[in-house]
Amino acid sequence: MIRLILLSAVLIWPLHSIARGTGDLGIVIERATGSVQIIETSTNSSLGRIEGLGDLSHASAVYSRDEQFAYIFGRDGGLTKIDIINKKIVKRILQSGNSIGGAISQDGKLVAVSNYKPGGVKVFDAETLNLVADIPARYGNDGLLSKVIGLVDAPGQKFIFSLWDADEIWVADLSNINNKNSTPKITKFKDIGRNPYDALITPDGRYYIAGLFGEDGMAKLDLWNLDAGVIRILDGYGKGEQKLPVYKMPHLEGWAIAGNFAFVPAVGRHEVLVINTLDWTEAGRIKVHGQPIFVMARPDGRNVWVNFAVPNNDTLQIIDTQSLNIIKTLTPGKGVLHMEFEPRGGQVWASIRDEDRLAIFNTDTFEELITFEARKPSGIFFTSRAHRIGL
Amino acid sequence: MIRLILLSAVLIWPLHSIARGTGDLGIVIERATGSVQIIETSTNSSLGRIEGLGDLSHASAVYSRDEQFAYIFGRDGGLTKIDIINKKIVKRILQSGNSIGGAISQDGKLVAVSNYKPGGVKVFDAETLNLVADIPARYGNDGLLSKVIGLVDAPGQKFIFSLWDADEIWVADLSNINNKNSTPKITKFKDIGRNPYDALITPDGRYYIAGLFGEDGMAKLDLWNLDAGVIRILDGYGKGEQKLPVYKMPHLEGWAIAGNFAFVPAVGRHEVLVINTLDWTEAGRIKVHGQPIFVMARPDGRNVWVNFAVPNNDTLQIIDTQSLNIIKTLTPGKGVLHMEFEPRGGQVWASIRDEDRLAIFNTDTFEELITFEARKPSGIFFTSRAHRIGL
Repeated sequence: MIRLILLSAVLIWPLHSIARGTGDLGIVIERATGSVQIIETSTNSSLGRIEGLGDLSHASAVYSRDEQFAYIFGRDGGLTKIDIINKKIVKRILQSGNSIGGAISQDGKLVAVSNYKPGGVKVFDAETLNLVADIPARYGNDGLLSKVIGLVDAPGQKFIFSLWDADEIWVADLSNINNKNSTPKITKFKDIGRNPYDALITPDGRYYIAGLFGEDGMAKLDLWNLDAGVIRILDGYGKGEQKLPVYKMPHLEGWAIAGNFAFVPAVGRHEVLVINTLDWTEAGRIKVHGQPIFVMARPDGRNVWVNFAVPNNDTLQIIDTQSLNIIKTLTPGKGVLHMEFEPRGGQVWASIRDEDRLAIFNTDTFEELITFEARKPSGIFFTSRAHRIGL
Repeated sequence: MIRLILLSAVLIWPLHSIARGTGDLGIVIERATGSVQIIETSTNSSLGRIEGLGDLSHASAVYSRDEQFAYIFGRDGGLTKIDIINKKIVKRILQSGNSIGGAISQDGKLVAVSNYKPGGVKVFDAETLNLVADIPARYGNDGLLSKVIGLVDAPGQKFIFSLWDADEIWVADLSNINNKNSTPKITKFKDIGRNPYDALITPDGRYYIAGLFGEDGMAKLDLWNLDAGVIRILDGYGKGEQKLPVYKMPHLEGWAIAGNFAFVPAVGRHEVLVINTLDWTEAGRIKVHGQPIFVMARPDGRNVWVNFAVPNNDTLQIIDTQSLNIIKTLTPGKGVLHMEFEPRGGQVWASIRDEDRLAIFNTDTFEELITFEARKPSGIFFTSRAHRIGL
């Protein structure tokens, strides 16, 4: 009988993962193998792997509000809902030919994906992944479709995004979406500047700022005051300078705000731009080791960590946000693709792609605390993102 | 055999709660019955109750970094570690005669409690609740013990707190605490102003600000620049005015920062003070319905919600942080003791003590969405606090 009970225990066991908190979990995109590794940050260990997610080059992720599920946006247009507790794929759809990122609505019920091909945004039910709204990014008299970039969520069930080809920013309000009505209210802003390449939203969800690839400067929209329209800021910040070839487009999602300064990568320059957020003017430039990709603030804003494009992607630099000096240069290894801070800032994780490993640093001492194996890791996403506006 | 398997399944089942995410969980203090109710914010429901927590009048809570555990600080000096997944008390100790609040360290390994009797701070191992460090709040030539208030955590394994009787602010650095060394490094600031009654830390963990009960004004400490010492701000903001009797001490933990404005309750006045955080001067005062208790910002900072002391504690007022106008007055019922916003701000929960219920509001429309039973509810704490500095 004992044997039988043990047997049945084994039979029942796999149905239920052991209950544990999910606040210290995270995922690491393993780009070459179409897998994600599940990690925890309390003792810094790996909890397992989920495979079969397709092309994960340039993939990103958002979390369900309860932190049980992550939605992975793959380069192949795949949208995969994974269960990070039970370590399995819940559902996977190919929703377009080529996608670049996504967002989850304030209430957690809608997942939006921005697409290159065909250009537009698709919105899905977060529970079922059924299509809820389709927003083709048509522009001009011929109704061409634009690539869509810089998709973020904002309070009030809004999604904001930019049209690369059309030089437009759109605000989609989905607060009235329900079973009977699947038509979002769209507000369009035109001629915002040439080729917006990525965008960010401030942590309070108020300002949406798009970087421009086709010209210098950035485009700013105050979501609390849409009537004011899109304002150009940092106009001509690189005027008259000789541009370097751009080895990799920088990312703006990871931008850094510290006090009244924002820190953003300068496109094609070995510089981090400092912006005064009180009047959105340039407050300075910091010379760095290479072309910056991610410029990310430690959660307390005291330091900013920067990684770089090839050929300088073996390096991390840390900037003190008071003195604007570089206070540390680390060379953890080739292919430092991404960083993620613990939400209260004590440690930071970095993907070292070419060494197939993750490295974890103490953010005060800059000491490398631990490293462990990951297959060509890129993006790192902790569950605490579930509780942030715009992430 | 089937019957036996089912029997053993029943035997095994209670050992494991069904795994689910913990990002949308929270607890509600039920002050009169020494219990906490566990709730979830995705569908707004109750998940159960844990009893036997002693005197929970004026209780508060912090979360473990994984969100599985909450630490409840009771008025009777009780420190109770509860498991909100398995809905049980893990450990309960009476660590002093009278306590007022607590905090958890940046790394989640230390829980600190501030005590009235005997005055001081005790620091416990978050895993075992074993005492790690004892910090008696002795002051003056006679070595008297002061009541301690306004205890918060700060980056770098620091705890900051104020001494009511001694007019001092102490910074305790526990970054070198380990098995061999249990002596925190204490930095003391004296003559900071008469009778600090509560304190707050800015969301970035940089500024610690104590309210003063014995005089007008507040005391500010820049944790990035301890050498500058404690600076008095808003000196004499109520000078020459006739004071009203103070019906209930306001709370500062729930203070609100929106853009460059901070909103705090004025002690004993029917006013919310507006502080310009660029220079820490008074930027205005807003007349409100009663003596404000909690002044809390919606996570996007666009509105501030205020509750009040008796006899006005049936009311909530909402302030627009741009115009500084009151845009809505709600009267949900007698005894509105506390509010907690969902981390992305779509809904806010309120405790209506005298009606034994919780009310949940849409923060855009101010509509009351749902209400459910709770026994004399007071503090509401969501698990997203696990990921915030100073909460």
